Amino acid sequence: MILSLDAMGGDRAPAATVHGAVWAARDFGMTVQLVGRPEAIEAELAKHDTTGLDLPIIPAGEVIEMDDHPVKAVRAKKDAGMNVAVRQVKAGHSDAFITAGNSGGALAAALFGLGRIRGIKRPALSTIFPTSSERGFCFLLDVGANTDVRPEFLYQFGLMGSLYAERVLGVSKPRVGIVSTGEEEGKGSTLVKEAAELMKAAPYNFIGNVEGKDIPAGLADVVVTDGFTGNVIIKFAEGLSKFLLGTIKQEIKARPLAVAGSLLARGAFNAVGKKLDYREFGGGALLGVNGVTIITHGRSDAYTIRNALRVAGNAVEKDILHAIKTGKKEI
Amino acid sequence: MILSLDAMGGDRAPAATVHGAVWAARDFGMTVQLVGRPEAIEAELAKHDTTGLDLPIIPAGEVIEMDDHPVKAVRAKKDAGMNVAVRQVKAGHSDAFITAGNSGGALAAALFGLGRIRGIKRPALSTIFPTSSERGFCFLLDVGANTDVRPEFLYQFGLMGSLYAERVLGVSKPRVGIVSTGEEEGKGSTLVKEAAELMKAAPYNFIGNVEGKDIPAGLADVVVTDGFTGNVIIKFAEGLSKFLLGTIKQEIKARPLAVAGSLLARGAFNAVGKKLDYREFGGGALLGVNGVTIITHGRSDAYTIRNALRVAGNAVEKDILHAIKTGKKEI
Repeated sequence: MILSLDAMGGDRAPAATVHGAVWAARDFGMTVQLVGRPEAIEAELAKHDTTGLDLPIIPAGEVIEMDDHPVKAVRAKKDAGMNVAVRQVKAGHSDAFITAGNSGGALAAALFGLGRIRGIKRPALSTIFPTSSERGFCFLLDVGANTDVRPEFLYQFGLMGSLYAERVLGVSKPRVGIVSTGEEEGKGSTLVKEAAELMKAAPYNFIGNVEGKDIPAGLADVVVTDGFTGNVIIKFAEGLSKFLLGTIKQEIKARPLAVAGSLLARGAFNAVGKKLDYREFGGGALLGVNGVTIITHGRSDAYTIRNALRVAGNAVEKDILHAIKTGKKEI
Repeated sequence: MILSLDAMGGDRAPAATVHGAVWAARDFGMTVQLVGRPEAIEAELAKHDTTGLDLPIIPAGEVIEMDDHPVKAVRAKKDAGMNVAVRQVKAGHSDAFITAGNSGGALAAALFGLGRIRGIKRPALSTIFPTSSERGFCFLLDVGANTDVRPEFLYQFGLMGSLYAERVLGVSKPRVGIVSTGEEEGKGSTLVKEAAELMKAAPYNFIGNVEGKDIPAGLADVVVTDGFTGNVIIKFAEGLSKFLLGTIKQEIKARPLAVAGSLLARGAFNAVGKKLDYREFGGGALLGVNGVTIITHGRSDAYTIRNALRVAGNAVEKDILHAIKTGKKEI
């Protein structure tokens, strides 16, 4: 297993990326190609014990910066780490591309460099979202690759999501729901109604509409939506969690006895924080491009990078590309 | 001030509605017309001390049930409480229509019975949403009246929201934002980009795009979105809050010491619950119809009904209808 990591991508690169790569190479026994500026990468590698690990450096002189215009930068900076990493995958020198860099840039680099899987109209960016169900998570897509969609795109997001949930996440016969404004058939926008009509005849386990409140409740294993709504949902979840936990802490601080209580309850709070922590999920797969691509949070630390490499490794091992290409659920 | 309450509407009607009306009549000195089945209303009124309160009963023999098809039921049941209450407003015998009943039915009853304000293309359902800002809330619309919108509808939602926030909620020069996938201009769906272009030239204080995470942070005082996205947001907020608070409680229960902690911290938890409680906000105004209309949660209890009547009273007192009709911000 050989993975290509954009070593210069993300707010904390290259320290966090190199550290995460060392961590993953040790924990999972994978080869991680560190793509970027050799001297910067070497300086970081020197801080770790890399005995027995396979961490080759693939030189790339340019970087897609976080504030670069994604499409323009990807086109202009041919020698950017993202582009070089994607070319590694394209050429068959690597099994997957992983980045914590400019996510619009990552989308563009993967789409331009790898192309779409034949028959897939639009790639979709996915994420794992925590739920209160026994399983503890659902698989949500699209969370930002396509802000304007057509019903057949949503139909295909359901297909790719179902295959990923089944093969990579180990969910048997995943329940696929589409986000809408009511649970009853016929509720929602014209787009959703038309997509649901297509999905009713799909070869996956389509369970109909799910409302906003049903997502954290875990009513569906795969939650399909357009990239506009999906992006608003995950960012809103981040903001609301911060607000809620912040408010609880503030209220606790305002009460003398409650401070003692909060000290005692601290373990519980930490457990909740961990449950919600995007670092645990290790980034989302970009499904539908012709190569395994994992795009993770710009704020990723070493632990998130390690987890993103693990997610990429799983997707390669379970051959999600082949599954989407054949469109069948043969596990 | 005379308000017309759909006394039979909502999961807990008529007990909660009549109780809420008694409460509001006493607290705010308003006349509340109780519209519905006289014997049911009288039986509830008998449970309260109504000395000195003005609570006339307006007979209405039919009810739009929670599982009725909204538009069909509103058309078929001419003598439903919602329709009778709306006719009270239309005829000038009342200043506002308030209901906790079938919300689709309430939309239809208000739209058919009162019509749109001249020049307003689509009415929008609004809500007050808690934020971590100093003000503690934002005004969010549309949360479900229109699942398919055009840019000019969003432009008008911004106008109506700004006027409401300024006149009724007392926010000076409200910052109006549009929900999108990135803060930078040009991010988002085609719909949002076109709407933002219109809003840049609006007579209100348009501050551009807000992301999902910016809503609970209170970056905008008025948050404009289409009724599909808005509905998903508020229902997702409900589900996520339940999940988060439930998880914290579960984690606390799992720890022996934490149980003691949680007893001490209980006051803090209650304060947070209150902050998030839709009961405090008293329902959302349906803006753009030609009569003050407040639609509140189907699960409303007496306290929510009381607050919804207070919200209606404020909207009447501050003459939001006149403000929207003139479209100017003259306070």
